[in-house]
Amino acid sequence: MKIGKATLPRSAICTSDEHTIVVRGRDLSQELIGRIGFVEHFFLLLTGALPSAGQAAVLNATLVAIAEHGLVPSVQAARMTFAAAPDALQGAVAAGILGCGSVVLGSSETAGRMYAEIATRAAQGGGLDAAALAVMQAWRAAGRAIPGYGHPLHKQRDARVDALFHVARAAGTDLGYVAIAEAAEALLPQVLGKELKLNVSGAIPAVLLGAGFPVEALKGVPILARTAGLIAHLFEEMRQPIGFALSYQATREMVYDGELPAGFGKR
Amino acid sequence: MKIGKATLPRSAICTSDEHTIVVRGRDLSQELIGRIGFVEHFFLLLTGALPSAGQAAVLNATLVAIAEHGLVPSVQAARMTFAAAPDALQGAVAAGILGCGSVVLGSSETAGRMYAEIATRAAQGGGLDAAALAVMQAWRAAGRAIPGYGHPLHKQRDARVDALFHVARAAGTDLGYVAIAEAAEALLPQVLGKELKLNVSGAIPAVLLGAGFPVEALKGVPILARTAGLIAHLFEEMRQPIGFALSYQATREMVYDGELPAGFGKR
Amino acid sequence: MKIGKATLPRSAICTSDEHTIVVRGRDLSQELIGRIGFVEHFFLLLTGALPSAGQAAVLNATLVAIAEHGLVPSVQAARMTFAAAPDALQGAVAAGILGCGSVVLGSSETAGRMYAEIATRAAQGGGLDAAALAVMQAWRAAGRAIPGYGHPLHKQRDARVDALFHVARAAGTDLGYVAIAEAAEALLPQVLGKELKLNVSGAIPAVLLGAGFPVEALKGVPILARTAGLIAHLFEEMRQPIGFALSYQATREMVYDGELPAGFGKR
Amino acid sequence: MKIGKATLPRSAICTSDEHTIVVRGRDLSQELIGRIGFVEHFFLLLTGALPSAGQAAVLNATLVAIAEHGLVPSVQAARMTFAAAPDALQGAVAAGILGCGSVVLGSSETAGRMYAEIATRAAQGGGLDAAALAVMQAWRAAGRAIPGYGHPLHKQRDARVDALFHVARAAGTDLGYVAIAEAAEALLPQVLGKELKLNVSGAIPAVLLGAGFPVEALKGVPILARTAGLIAHLFEEMRQPIGFALSYQATREMVYDGELPAGFGKR
Repeated sequence: MKIGKATLPRSAICTSDEHTIVVRGRDLSQELIGRIGFVEHFFLLLTGALPSAGQAAVLNATLVAIAEHGLVPSVQAARMTFAAAPDALQGAVAAGILGCGSVVLGSSETAGRMYAEIATRAAQGGGLDAAALAVMQAWRAAGRAIPGYGHPLHKQRDARVDALFHVARAAGTDLGYVAIAEAAEALLPQVLGKELKLNVSGAIPAVLLGAGFPVEALKGVPILARTAGLIAHLFEEMRQPIGFALSYQATREMVYDGELPAGFGKR
Repeated sequence: MKIGKATLPRSAICTSDEHTIVVRGRDLSQELIGRIGFVEHFFLLLTGALPSAGQAAVLNATLVAIAEHGLVPSVQAARMTFAAAPDALQGAVAAGILGCGSVVLGSSETAGRMYAEIATRAAQGGGLDAAALAVMQAWRAAGRAIPGYGHPLHKQRDARVDALFHVARAAGTDLGYVAIAEAAEALLPQVLGKELKLNVSGAIPAVLLGAGFPVEALKGVPILARTAGLIAHLFEEMRQPIGFALSYQATREMVYDGELPAGFGKR
Repeated sequence: MKIGKATLPRSAICTSDEHTIVVRGRDLSQELIGRIGFVEHFFLLLTGALPSAGQAAVLNATLVAIAEHGLVPSVQAARMTFAAAPDALQGAVAAGILGCGSVVLGSSETAGRMYAEIATRAAQGGGLDAAALAVMQAWRAAGRAIPGYGHPLHKQRDARVDALFHVARAAGTDLGYVAIAEAAEALLPQVLGKELKLNVSGAIPAVLLGAGFPVEALKGVPILARTAGLIAHLFEEMRQPIGFALSYQATREMVYDGELPAGFGKR
Repeated sequence: MKIGKATLPRSAICTSDEHTIVVRGRDLSQELIGRIGFVEHFFLLLTGALPSAGQAAVLNATLVAIAEHGLVPSVQAARMTFAAAPDALQGAVAAGILGCGSVVLGSSETAGRMYAEIATRAAQGGGLDAAALAVMQAWRAAGRAIPGYGHPLHKQRDARVDALFHVARAAGTDLGYVAIAEAAEALLPQVLGKELKLNVSGAIPAVLLGAGFPVEALKGVPILARTAGLIAHLFEEMRQPIGFALSYQATREMVYDGELPAGFGKR
């Protein structure tokens, strides 16, 4: 069935013949394997250009920062899935990735979009603070949460934030979005009536946008990073299974608040 | 419900308090972000130890080698899924990962298990060739395919194989499994009655096992690598959509070989 | 880690002890198995109440209507996934379900939300037509598509629409949302400047909302229905594999519009 | 890329033109919607033939029996996924389906394969008991678990088993596989050295194979059934969220058994 207008698939990422695999214009075996690292390769796949050393350093740092945070819900989902279906590692990884959503790991992308909006508005004049305030107030007026600030566990500024900002400064990439993220942090009490500190989901786009990473692809960073963490957890699950123990603990105090048939539990 | 015996979840990968996230015994913000690359971090998450420079080089090379091969079935599945559900990037990535199965990308792991079996048998004496032949004949007798050899497109030895072996030699990691893979390649005609050349799914475990990568986690390498490729394809899909064009092309010559009600197509 | 305020899980759907499984207040083995059909059970699970015969008839009809439409993108994604990973049927089904998104099968839910909005506004007085027009104009002003109308293949009113409306009339369920859907269809040229006929994704909520099906669960209907279709396709795939043929056809005319290294294709 | 030999996709399930959707040789709108129930439609999609009333009754009963068992691991995975990614219902359903694996819900299919093997052997003469014993001993000798017997909660014969057998008897479908399942249950102590009672995953193939359901598609039954249960849980999750509460409870007593950096927890 024809849906939409395009009928000829086209792509600029990869082609191959019997002898050669071409990735972004380069011979994969001759020019890429052993010549560049995986993170440089990811940047190349995505943008078509090799990153500078500074860009690669920033991208590496964000991937390290967000790869792992313990037995979070998506890791639990993956480990439970593996316990039930140990023949399909890919299925357990997929279950974990499906938890990279708007509430938990998607805020990197949303924060990036907010920072980009602030940058556009600031470029029209009036100053960074006025632009940040206006955009955040518009987001609140539209009923949207302000992404990139606050954390259930880390009430002060998450240590990963400063580590990432330090990497960006050392790498010499553009710090304009870091300035935007910090301006927004300082003005947030005027918008929300309370202080919330920058979290890692705010810091990631702040440094990545300055490193030339495309805003629409930001959600790919936590997804790729967490895939590494998920694989590590599933390898641990193979040798020290806890998937069913997690689900047992989760419901030990579960309350059934529905109806019961007469005589239930009396036998 | 209690399934199995373990009821207390335990993990050695990560813990945290309000100030610090600990990953494999290290302070994430102080010791890892900006200090090590993402691929080193993946190795650390998985094994608990930082890789040597040589181990990291080999792991990087395998991830670069397998990240991308054009519009393969799993990429098509991901792009079609994104075209239908553009609000959930994670869902499209998950759909692509679900195609990393026993037939397509899982043979890295299976080949690794075969090489490990050959290594164990060779260590019992009798020589490498005899061990390789015996193990491959046993696999065939049990009705299993010999993984790691042959490719639908690359009839000669896939250029990625030599590139990976070159990296392993330069990195100074153990080459014992490379020798096993090549011994098996040379003996394969005696087992199958035809020549099949080492493919990338055979070369990956050959170099990774020598770099201390655990055999049970081998399937994680194509999964992580392809996640990078999938994200690049989905970013291209956002800007140049072909998901529906692919599905249109796929069925242009589709043959319906079922029954038809009277009068169908006559109106 | 504690995210959000609720810490005690509660549920009203199911509980059990060693002797009895209770589903929505009923003894599963004594009162449900063999006593009610699967579709009645689905309604019970969802709403806590058994459906009337009319409600069950309407729900059955919508599930039949949307279960299958040939080798659509999500079916292709599932069959390709199964070809690559034949050991994990659940993974191939999951890949297909991931294509039930906002563009393709999610419009049942969106159309249901639009009809509910029209119903609320009409209840405030002013007449159904005025309410339908106002809501559709507001959706367009907000940049939203009008869901439930038009089809790439069925240019006239999809025959499934009349079949579903016929079932609803015979079942004696509330026809108020059918009236809304038809009023919107008649007024659509005033909103879009062109005629678009009701499609099955509009007809499904029109009849289901009148049958007491909750608007927030509407997306569950295409998901459950397509799961049945996906399982049938994957069973066919086991016996007559076409997953790789689909992907081969899809890229036969693929255009690579990226760069090439010097000498590519010359060997 | 061409993988395998088939290059022309063919299917016998569905075709359509602008006016008519044909499913298994029937006009969907004229002959199926409103004429048959969803479960009959599932049987038709799968096998190409409409079920008898008895076959439909048995299939309905198995789907009712297995749709729901409370907050089991796959339901927890789905609810956690939805809490993290509430915009993608399909992703949360997919995460739940991915837990229908070999350990938890896949044993229906495995038990069906074992019963089919026993039936084949018994048909060669020697009696049912001898065949059952021989097949179970061969499975054990090959290191395989005997599927379909025992349950972590229901130590006596699960009440769902008798309910399903009762339905099969009333439906008048073939009871040969029920006899096989019960023969295996009686002989199991000779194989395992302990008594294990038939569970629902054994009873489902026992009645379904007698109703003409194909053994290769057996895993589709728990997958379709659980999809209904998952949708009900996710609808409850929308109104009474517990996804994060489950993950909080799951790790309250979690033990970190890895290393710690000096000074951790001292601040």
